[in-house]
Amino acid sequence: MSFDTTNWFTEAIDETGTAFSLKLKSRLHEEQTPYQKIEIFDTETFGKLMVIDGCTMVSSRDNFLYHEMMTHPALYTHPSPRRVLIIGGGDCGTLHEVLKHPEVKQAQQVDIDERVTRLSEKYFPELCASNRDPRAELHFTDGIKWVREAADDSLDVIIVDSTDPVGPGEVLFSEEFYRHCRRALGEHGILVQQSESPLLHQDILRNMYQRMQAAGFAQQATLNFPQPIYPSGWWSATLAGNTELRSFREQDAAQKAFSCDYYNAEIHKGALAVPEFMKKADTI
Amino acid sequence: MSFDTTNWFTEAIDETGTAFSLKLKSRLHEEQTPYQKIEIFDTETFGKLMVIDGCTMVSSRDNFLYHEMMTHPALYTHPSPRRVLIIGGGDCGTLHEVLKHPEVKQAQQVDIDERVTRLSEKYFPELCASNRDPRAELHFTDGIKWVREAADDSLDVIIVDSTDPVGPGEVLFSEEFYRHCRRALGEHGILVQQSESPLLHQDILRNMYQRMQAAGFAQQATLNFPQPIYPSGWWSATLAGNTELRSFREQDAAQKAFSCDYYNAEIHKGALAVPEFMKKADTI
Repeated sequence: MSFDTTNWFTEAIDETGTAFSLKLKSRLHEEQTPYQKIEIFDTETFGKLMVIDGCTMVSSRDNFLYHEMMTHPALYTHPSPRRVLIIGGGDCGTLHEVLKHPEVKQAQQVDIDERVTRLSEKYFPELCASNRDPRAELHFTDGIKWVREAADDSLDVIIVDSTDPVGPGEVLFSEEFYRHCRRALGEHGILVQQSESPLLHQDILRNMYQRMQAAGFAQQATLNFPQPIYPSGWWSATLAGNTELRSFREQDAAQKAFSCDYYNAEIHKGALAVPEFMKKADTI
Repeated sequence: MSFDTTNWFTEAIDETGTAFSLKLKSRLHEEQTPYQKIEIFDTETFGKLMVIDGCTMVSSRDNFLYHEMMTHPALYTHPSPRRVLIIGGGDCGTLHEVLKHPEVKQAQQVDIDERVTRLSEKYFPELCASNRDPRAELHFTDGIKWVREAADDSLDVIIVDSTDPVGPGEVLFSEEFYRHCRRALGEHGILVQQSESPLLHQDILRNMYQRMQAAGFAQQATLNFPQPIYPSGWWSATLAGNTELRSFREQDAAQKAFSCDYYNAEIHKGALAVPEFMKKADTI
């Protein structure tokens, strides 16, 4: 029963009592940036793997689940998503999904650490395939400051594609941050944020809902989806706005002219289904 | 980055290149039965854990996902599920879910290894809460032989709650086994079987579909759901029958008089949504 950890990368989390491991072919890169430690591995079965401060971020094999679910539900919920801001998302996978929508006129990606993007360009070129799209803007600066300085009613969708709400990522889950998002989005804009594991992190979800409401977002909706490399293999994204978030441009989604690997209109509806334990716990 | 495996149980799988671990409080039991090695652990965050031949089977915390999804979609797809057979399922969690349906008149559970049930009674009493229901029959014998000897048209639903299709579990994924199920179910019966990870085991799913069709089941439908302790954290159950399997007694499901922790009518519909990569690969 003993696990020989040689040639495996493991993310072990004491609080959740869980660990996930991928078998490695080789370590490709390791560096300490001014912000974090980034490692890149070549795995046996999941392609390339990016790890930041010991946490799995992106694998070649399963990132489509996360990136598609962070993007398409929000963009098909907004009636006309023209101006999109991505906070974090330095691997550029979310940006790539956003730019599949022809309605989008401007997609700003604001990640504090340029090295994430440079390493993604090298090791995950498929995620960076739209970086030179004329609608794409890559900024390497503080996303919180960016939102604070954004003009009122200047954005249609804000996607918070960040790390967990601990350490530097914590402020992205604060009422003050949501308040600035709310102002920059105006009445019709939609915020979407990764919201951790539905099973392991119900307290985080509950806090998010409360803070989003306190910040002036009257509506929330959480989408659940699989994400094998994240703790519990089950993840979520939460929409916030002041319009109905449980209906979306279903016909547009069903007739989309671009290709996805996970998302479609039925998957979107299915991801909105609320498990009974969440209803009982009044989590969301 | 090194993972100190002391006080963790790990299931590491070379073929999938993945491993999943749970942090342990203690080992509660270990025995070699005539059929397999059974271990019971007390974990830090997932309650009790049963492991068979090194593979995670059931945890107190997340078994509701699997047991509910193995049961309720099939029983709400059948118009009147009175006679139910469970092959495997020795932990009795599936039986417990089946007996929540008042229409069920007889629920036979046929697992070859009585020790699984005896240990479940001790360590997972909540799963065994319906074992003394007068409708329940617990048989400890060969499930394949049981189905072979079942009378024609004598069952409404067969639930194959088995281990992976390797070793002794393999025959439960064979055309011959499906042919006996088909005969015992008659025209209107429904077979449901656990069908592994949608991401990691598409070849198994594809084989299942082909063999089920060859055995005379004209219709198949796969339901995807989260299952943190199984490889990839994402699992599936596949329905087979000769009636429409993508619609179900939705109103009955929405008005069910019993309590679930995951399943409801929206979850059922959502689980039937087919991810794009499966459509592209023509997996199902």
